[in-house]
Amino acid sequence: MNRKIRVTVWNEFRHEREAKHPAREVYPHGMHAVIAKALSASPDFEARTATLDEPEHGLTKDALETTDVLIWWGHAAHGEVRDEVVERVHQRVVLGGMGLIVLHSGHFSKIFRKLMGTTCDLRWREMGEKERIWVVEPNHPIAAGLPPHFEIPHTEMYGERFDIPAPDALVFVSWFQGGDVFRSGCCFNRGIGRIFYFRPGHETFPIYHQPEVQRVIANACRWAAPADCPPTRFGQAVTPLEKC
Amino acid sequence: MNRKIRVTVWNEFRHEREAKHPAREVYPHGMHAVIAKALSASPDFEARTATLDEPEHGLTKDALETTDVLIWWGHAAHGEVRDEVVERVHQRVVLGGMGLIVLHSGHFSKIFRKLMGTTCDLRWREMGEKERIWVVEPNHPIAAGLPPHFEIPHTEMYGERFDIPAPDALVFVSWFQGGDVFRSGCCFNRGIGRIFYFRPGHETFPIYHQPEVQRVIANACRWAAPADCPPTRFGQAVTPLEKC
Amino acid sequence: MNRKIRVTVWNEFRHEREAKHPAREVYPHGMHAVIAKALSASPDFEARTATLDEPEHGLTKDALETTDVLIWWGHAAHGEVRDEVVERVHQRVVLGGMGLIVLHSGHFSKIFRKLMGTTCDLRWREMGEKERIWVVEPNHPIAAGLPPHFEIPHTEMYGERFDIPAPDALVFVSWFQGGDVFRSGCCFNRGIGRIFYFRPGHETFPIYHQPEVQRVIANACRWAAPADCPPTRFGQAVTPLEKC
Amino acid sequence: MNRKIRVTVWNEFRHEREAKHPAREVYPHGMHAVIAKALSASPDFEARTATLDEPEHGLTKDALETTDVLIWWGHAAHGEVRDEVVERVHQRVVLGGMGLIVLHSGHFSKIFRKLMGTTCDLRWREMGEKERIWVVEPNHPIAAGLPPHFEIPHTEMYGERFDIPAPDALVFVSWFQGGDVFRSGCCFNRGIGRIFYFRPGHETFPIYHQPEVQRVIANACRWAAPADCPPTRFGQAVTPLEKC
Repeated sequence: MNRKIRVTVWNEFRHEREAKHPAREVYPHGMHAVIAKALSASPDFEARTATLDEPEHGLTKDALETTDVLIWWGHAAHGEVRDEVVERVHQRVVLGGMGLIVLHSGHFSKIFRKLMGTTCDLRWREMGEKERIWVVEPNHPIAAGLPPHFEIPHTEMYGERFDIPAPDALVFVSWFQGGDVFRSGCCFNRGIGRIFYFRPGHETFPIYHQPEVQRVIANACRWAAPADCPPTRFGQAVTPLEKC
Repeated sequence: MNRKIRVTVWNEFRHEREAKHPAREVYPHGMHAVIAKALSASPDFEARTATLDEPEHGLTKDALETTDVLIWWGHAAHGEVRDEVVERVHQRVVLGGMGLIVLHSGHFSKIFRKLMGTTCDLRWREMGEKERIWVVEPNHPIAAGLPPHFEIPHTEMYGERFDIPAPDALVFVSWFQGGDVFRSGCCFNRGIGRIFYFRPGHETFPIYHQPEVQRVIANACRWAAPADCPPTRFGQAVTPLEKC
Repeated sequence: MNRKIRVTVWNEFRHEREAKHPAREVYPHGMHAVIAKALSASPDFEARTATLDEPEHGLTKDALETTDVLIWWGHAAHGEVRDEVVERVHQRVVLGGMGLIVLHSGHFSKIFRKLMGTTCDLRWREMGEKERIWVVEPNHPIAAGLPPHFEIPHTEMYGERFDIPAPDALVFVSWFQGGDVFRSGCCFNRGIGRIFYFRPGHETFPIYHQPEVQRVIANACRWAAPADCPPTRFGQAVTPLEKC
Repeated sequence: MNRKIRVTVWNEFRHEREAKHPAREVYPHGMHAVIAKALSASPDFEARTATLDEPEHGLTKDALETTDVLIWWGHAAHGEVRDEVVERVHQRVVLGGMGLIVLHSGHFSKIFRKLMGTTCDLRWREMGEKERIWVVEPNHPIAAGLPPHFEIPHTEMYGERFDIPAPDALVFVSWFQGGDVFRSGCCFNRGIGRIFYFRPGHETFPIYHQPEVQRVIANACRWAAPADCPPTRFGQAVTPLEKC
């Protein structure tokens, strides 16, 4: 891609606006603002944001058609995301090749479950324990420039069994202080779109301020940018190429 | 599994009942009847049938709970399959481990698309051309006892690009007289269920009467029978296993 | 397979014979004896053993041709395994479909490296720390009957990056007390043979006495037993099946 | 990668120098010359060549260390490639991350077989028949800019079963006039190196003069260029990251 990659950072943006919620302090303008700002520091990206409470959740047809990669953070309000918007995002990924980066509690979003076809359920625990993320595929573009492992000092734990299809590539595996493991960085191709699930991130820990986490998200946006291939067309009855 | 595998063969069963439809001659009692009879010839299986126009499409909660493997053939009436039945089948596969064998035009069924997360679209042509099916993973259980390749004398063509996630195992690839190829035998794990898509089969060609095709379906039922693992449970917040 | 699965348990069998080596106490007759005895408790298996210091390492042409699944434990004497025996085992796996279960330090055996094509290197630490093995694919036959996780109280640690090709199925991931993770149960198809790498096992910890570990090994032997497919033949120039 | 990708095109270069061999006319300066020239037309590449009969086959330590991607064509003289050079290439791929593009009859080269761990055998027929290459993963970087299918008017046939490990990505499948199919574009990760096997190419057909084929090779070189990750180091005994 010879132009900037157009990233839209979508956030539910509710916790950060609740009175006295600890998220207000860590992310006064929302997690999306921190992620978009970090991306904007690179000349590779042009970053915008969109949130649940905007009209059409900020994901109008126009907004999606000018988005190369969509980042998704949701948690408490998955059910409020309208089905027609989910359908629109799904089509833009599968038929149009828009990349999708699903963060943390986005594992339970309608769009991720629809793309995976499974429950996307997992085990979890919120005690602020330590997480260490291990790179298991060091040559993957999403691991570019990372050390062999890095730590999240305090996080919510997500543990296996994570009910997803086996990923097309497994880039990261997490170790947790409390005794669990998790497939933390998972790549999927669906239609002509590329999808990356990245586990870290929580509304009350400053995880999206961490340079390693920002690096992973930027790498993932580069990897998930649309391929140079025509959009998928439907319903083709075809004449034979050979005599029959 | 030390007992018989309980297979339910589901068929839309409309073409075979239409006046003057050629399917009537090839499958006077429906494709499901031929498939179920072939399975019943083996002591491994106990085969039943269910069809679209039965109450709840024959797929009541009880029927599904006593089914180890569900075979699915649909074509013209995918839209008439009720969403709550699709949801029930989905849960029985993903959470309960029921196997699912999707045949031919079932690629566009609601249940297959829901499990795959993609459009499941493909290219097609109905000229009665020849198909040759090649075994690309000879040690896969679904290829057991097959020759390196076998032919379907006359068939409807399905051609790539087949819009599915990369299968967990690719067992068969088809060659078509008219110049196309197709990933004809694809294995997927979704939740704790095993899914096999098998391309051959059409209402007006006697494909389900072919011994090789019957062999593949029987092999697939053995492979897809539920694993010896507990049903998936939801929503687990867990206490730590280590101090944290 | 309607007859017993013939398993040969191969062991380097050096540590257990060294004067004053702690392995003598834990495995007085060798690790192979404990593994073979555990398998023999099931009517599914007929278990034999073979060791490095037997003629041809106990792996004569005849021995291999009557072996369905070979279990491999080696550590300090990988270099003493003769190349022609490695070649013979390789051919028996790839061309003949013999299953191969590679245990623990067998990751550095000539046969495993030859089959993988990579260094099979890893990080390691011997402090007797705790390991917890998590099932990530509960419907895999090798996980049959296992709980969601189980522990090895004291073990040698193996940590990522484990330099293997991405496995065809990843069944287990390990958590270690010292902060590492590892892909502990990995399935591979090579030729018509099935290969399972299983991490646990060490000469001075009683790991092969553990019921869960014995269960995994037995499951793996069932999974890796030869498929019902003809042995691979070489060098086929073929006449066309269609006019050309 | 912000600099040019340094590609070395290696060719056995024997057929093209034999008196009266038809390869002389199609490739008077060798297939490597045509491939290198096509790559050099893009500002992305700096292309060199190396051949079997040069000292050390042209693959000295220095030559390899300044090569980002190695393209390999061999056929009649696989056995003459010296084992220490094969070992050197292997280490440069697996430990150093050099990309490797293996063309056509290179499937039987020592280096490809060593990396795959299998026989890499296949079925073949030399009748000059037509091949049609289908894109099955249109969003893969190696398919960039290609139409849904393209033809090789006259080629040597390679048919399944192709004895390779299941590829990490399957990009192309070929249809042959004589009735066969083949997995023609296969991606593998081994160590930190990326490997692409591409089927087309034969010494007496002008296949490497075809624009689509040149495009695939250029795409593959971009995809296989070394990742931004440190070279693999060996033999690491490590101190614990957590108390144990």
